[in-house]
Amino acid sequence: MSKVVADISVSLDGFIAGPNDSRDNPLGDRGERLHEWVYPLAGWREMHGLDGGATGPDSDLVKEAVQRAGAYVMGRRMFDHGEGPWGDEPPFHAPVFVVTHEEREPLEKRGGTTFTFVTGGVAEAVERARRAAGDKDVALAGGGQLICGVLAAGLLDEIQLHLVPVLLGGGVRLFAAEGGRTVEFETTRVTGSPSVTHLRLRPVRA
Amino acid sequence: MSKVVADISVSLDGFIAGPNDSRDNPLGDRGERLHEWVYPLAGWREMHGLDGGATGPDSDLVKEAVQRAGAYVMGRRMFDHGEGPWGDEPPFHAPVFVVTHEEREPLEKRGGTTFTFVTGGVAEAVERARRAAGDKDVALAGGGQLICGVLAAGLLDEIQLHLVPVLLGGGVRLFAAEGGRTVEFETTRVTGSPSVTHLRLRPVRA
Repeated sequence: MSKVVADISVSLDGFIAGPNDSRDNPLGDRGERLHEWVYPLAGWREMHGLDGGATGPDSDLVKEAVQRAGAYVMGRRMFDHGEGPWGDEPPFHAPVFVVTHEEREPLEKRGGTTFTFVTGGVAEAVERARRAAGDKDVALAGGGQLICGVLAAGLLDEIQLHLVPVLLGGGVRLFAAEGGRTVEFETTRVTGSPSVTHLRLRPVRA
Repeated sequence: MSKVVADISVSLDGFIAGPNDSRDNPLGDRGERLHEWVYPLAGWREMHGLDGGATGPDSDLVKEAVQRAGAYVMGRRMFDHGEGPWGDEPPFHAPVFVVTHEEREPLEKRGGTTFTFVTGGVAEAVERARRAAGDKDVALAGGGQLICGVLAAGLLDEIQLHLVPVLLGGGVRLFAAEGGRTVEFETTRVTGSPSVTHLRLRPVRA
């Protein structure tokens, strides 16, 4: 059964990017630190067309996430920040639905990545991704605002936090404390290494 | 070797108390939720002079923390909030050093708990607790401001976060993002259950 899942790296103090993020500095100051755990992994390198890298549980977990994803949903800001760096062959190799307010023609890239721009909101983007994903999962590519929007809409089946043992001391928060609503989760799996803890959570629906 | 350690329950969105905390509402609205995991445990009940309760890894971990603590350091706000509810026999059974700006005579309670008020700052309180603890650990009883102060002073050897899978959506943050300093940790142990994940971290000193 196809699920809607999110994977995101977060600091101990809850940041997914450092301070002063912009199109030229998409992860903010020191935000790169949150992704250091993933770059050396074979699973991540393979996704980016590179050989070699470290194997083991962290790598298997990344590989698993990539293999499960049949389509992606992405926030507009993440698309704007990523479009340049991803180049002609973005690392998704699947349909990507970008939630935006701006009408735009679909964009076809090399290696199977297509960007479709959805102006009908988060629920419509998730629904279209679900149809495109078939039996596979719909993966939320980020950023935090998109993930929180899908969670708030009651459409998120699972979130996996990659908790990086660092305090960034400022930046962009994953959970930005809007509205004072309590949301309960169940922890379904915890794995990791000294440099990252993977916390898999399932929102508990009332 | 005696260590300076902190144990604290925190929500997924980084709160250690809910919104609207006060002397009459010390954990804030919904903040009680963060401690639900501990109340049923035999280790916690024993600390409070109660029989029975659930045994197992979560309980052993609480018991271990209590047994390791030879003395406590506490923030003034936590003392003010706790003094009433703790009654005549507070659950520490050891010397407690309260960091405050106000001179005050020591307070001796039943069951081995003494409160000593230290006006010379966090480092002096830790030093006095270290002498009182002998071979045992100095435990930071909280709150968050005290823990962050000891961490910032370079005096914290270990912090164990009890990560509760809930978003509180507001309240008192453990890491309040002061100063934009990056602090690195090493994750030394991860244990837990579906209702709480215990993340043991060691600050990495430059």
